[in-house]
Amino acid sequence: MMLGFVGSGFLGQSVVSRVQVSSRKDARRNVRVTPRMDAEYRTGVKRNENFSKLQAGYLFPEIARRRNAYIEENPDKDIISLGIGDTTLPIPDHIRSGLQAGASKLGTKEGYSGYGAEQGSAGLRDKIASNIYSDRVKPEEVFVSDGAKCDIARLQMMFGPGTTSAVQDPSYPVYVDTSVMQGQTQLFNEGTSQFDGITYMRCDASNGFFPDLENTQRTDVIFFCSPNNPTGAAASKSQLEELVSFAKKNGSIIVYDAAYAPFVRSSDVPKSILEIEGAREVAIECNSFSKYAGFTGVRLGWVVVPNELKYSDGTKVRADFNRVMTTCFNGASNIAQSGGLACLDKEGLDEIEGLIDYYMKNAALLRTTMIDLGFDVYGGTDAPYVWVSFPGRSSWDVFSEILEKTQVVTIPGAGFGPGGDGFIRMSAFASKESCEEACERFRKMYG
Amino acid sequence: MMLGFVGSGFLGQSVVSRVQVSSRKDARRNVRVTPRMDAEYRTGVKRNENFSKLQAGYLFPEIARRRNAYIEENPDKDIISLGIGDTTLPIPDHIRSGLQAGASKLGTKEGYSGYGAEQGSAGLRDKIASNIYSDRVKPEEVFVSDGAKCDIARLQMMFGPGTTSAVQDPSYPVYVDTSVMQGQTQLFNEGTSQFDGITYMRCDASNGFFPDLENTQRTDVIFFCSPNNPTGAAASKSQLEELVSFAKKNGSIIVYDAAYAPFVRSSDVPKSILEIEGAREVAIECNSFSKYAGFTGVRLGWVVVPNELKYSDGTKVRADFNRVMTTCFNGASNIAQSGGLACLDKEGLDEIEGLIDYYMKNAALLRTTMIDLGFDVYGGTDAPYVWVSFPGRSSWDVFSEILEKTQVVTIPGAGFGPGGDGFIRMSAFASKESCEEACERFRKMYG
Repeated sequence: MMLGFVGSGFLGQSVVSRVQVSSRKDARRNVRVTPRMDAEYRTGVKRNENFSKLQAGYLFPEIARRRNAYIEENPDKDIISLGIGDTTLPIPDHIRSGLQAGASKLGTKEGYSGYGAEQGSAGLRDKIASNIYSDRVKPEEVFVSDGAKCDIARLQMMFGPGTTSAVQDPSYPVYVDTSVMQGQTQLFNEGTSQFDGITYMRCDASNGFFPDLENTQRTDVIFFCSPNNPTGAAASKSQLEELVSFAKKNGSIIVYDAAYAPFVRSSDVPKSILEIEGAREVAIECNSFSKYAGFTGVRLGWVVVPNELKYSDGTKVRADFNRVMTTCFNGASNIAQSGGLACLDKEGLDEIEGLIDYYMKNAALLRTTMIDLGFDVYGGTDAPYVWVSFPGRSSWDVFSEILEKTQVVTIPGAGFGPGGDGFIRMSAFASKESCEEACERFRKMYG
Repeated sequence: MMLGFVGSGFLGQSVVSRVQVSSRKDARRNVRVTPRMDAEYRTGVKRNENFSKLQAGYLFPEIARRRNAYIEENPDKDIISLGIGDTTLPIPDHIRSGLQAGASKLGTKEGYSGYGAEQGSAGLRDKIASNIYSDRVKPEEVFVSDGAKCDIARLQMMFGPGTTSAVQDPSYPVYVDTSVMQGQTQLFNEGTSQFDGITYMRCDASNGFFPDLENTQRTDVIFFCSPNNPTGAAASKSQLEELVSFAKKNGSIIVYDAAYAPFVRSSDVPKSILEIEGAREVAIECNSFSKYAGFTGVRLGWVVVPNELKYSDGTKVRADFNRVMTTCFNGASNIAQSGGLACLDKEGLDEIEGLIDYYMKNAALLRTTMIDLGFDVYGGTDAPYVWVSFPGRSSWDVFSEILEKTQVVTIPGAGFGPGGDGFIRMSAFASKESCEEACERFRKMYG
């Protein structure tokens, strides 16, 4: 029996589960075969100092921890989560059947497939290039992945410790955290609540949530997310032209996070950095099926690395990213890719539009409710996030207060950087009923 | 319409696809809004020098490239692949239905789930701990992933540039390549065909394919794969005790790749490093559903990081790996995890045994055929790889010769390191019929 029965386990009785204090010598080798163990044993391996720079844990598990702690203490209370941007609508039929077909074919001789190309199936790369980008990108420039968060980490692995990064402030925590992990930064500065060595580009109401690039120093890499998580701000065409021009002038690389692109409603708001002339020479675009097809758990995304993007020595960035994808990754799940193909059919695209409409109605409701209650509110028109101002207040305090008084989970803006303090992010991905109920509770609390 | 129709694409007509030579100034800002572009434009970002150290591409895409080139030139020839270790049997019913159910439930309100815990669903972590490890590991020590290759890269990201690594020679190329990418090494040494800064532990017939640890210098990390890819060697209990003892003596961390554990047939060959006393303090174990459930495309694996494993400063390695998994990863696909749960049911484990039996019969056939033909042959008894000796010959030459004369794709041992030269790896994952046909062709060529 290669693997054990349930109950006795794969390894039978042999696995040592507790540290045992025992030792004996193996006379043949004069080596302690069972070394004396003690509870304080440490290896001689030095911890990667970059990890000691990190502050606490990643943001969303911390939110979950506080939420779960509250639930434990208040088991009778009915929690509504407008916190993590997690989709809640079931996957619509056409897309779901693509996933299901992807699973069932693996049970057949004709349909079974093992390893796929790490960069994604040719069919899916083709379809992304044609159905998303109108053939204005080549399939070879498209790298299918298990999602944008993982791609950011892989891009950072590719850039390495020697590059400098700029992020929006506030921003999705992964850009900063992976920068720290890669050794691109110095220590966390308690005074500024920022990492020395990262350039933070403040985005707030005073600058229309677009950075003051004329007063921003050069960095190698610029992480830019639009429509923005967490502020909901959607950069206009001329703002993105300014960004591309800034990158060109400085010889920088923009990592453009377009994960919320399909939520754009306003005209003159591009859905891709590649709509901007010159972007091919300066930008990488990350995108994901998570937020618009409900694939947050399914895991499917992609990166576009244009052929024209080169390092200072002339090497194509695409070549090194290809090396990362083939060496550090083994492809997105074939089942997820089957779902991706269904997403990009006409029926799939229609289904996606239905999902997005639903969430944007939630966003509109949250937005108008908070505006009615007298708050300054941003976002929610081109993104599924509503960014509510609580001037002068600690956002973690407001988070706790809202949780305790209305049992609604939100995200404190400070979790996205000091520029987020004084704001609360509300996510539109909950059910319509939950959003309506949350708004009722807000009206009671603030009305 | 949020996303475009098929044909006009998501971005309509706006994406700029070709580098256009044009420029104009934006008088308002005195900045070139559409910069002059030229085909030679380079950013000012310095390429990560670690990538320039890498030699050629990752091994398996290179094999695929040569195979495809051969097919193009010889379209009438019937290629058999005993190359990449890719599973070919369809996924059996119980496991397949677990995958299918995981997909279909996403289409229902009750069954839909979005983001899962990055470390894996509690149910799957529990089941791995109990059904694979007989509860001798805790669920919190189990991290579910999208596979061992990705986990090695994440472990390397965690270790960072400041650690030294040892690998077996020959070995799975990912350990070396990720070591180079992380900056743990110096340059490739043309004379030795190895990277200066990595310790290579020769494994060959003269030492029974187990390293001479007494003459191995200390490194922080020791990558050890058993049963071994590519040699098929399966370390005995006393050999693994020696390895654990060596690690303890040196304060090193073993990264133990157990991806082929279920192929073990011999008694006194452990299936997990955690069977060895003392291992909890010195070892991390990687494993994968790829090779035994046919999940090479589905993507599911796990890592065990014992609580007792600590860096020199006392920090738990598990804490930093948890940080990597939550920050650089977003969980294995929920559909794949559903399949994993089915794998670990009694019916699933039985199905896995059936798959492994099938492949091991192939291995036995390949082994006995090559032995009959007069070759010294290793492996194939506890692993799905057969390691055939061609003393004094360049393995890339033998690879080409076998491909041209028998149309069978193998892997040249040198692809796994200089210690692999003079050997050819044959993988047992092809169909029974293909293996039989390949053996017929070998008999014709060498008989």
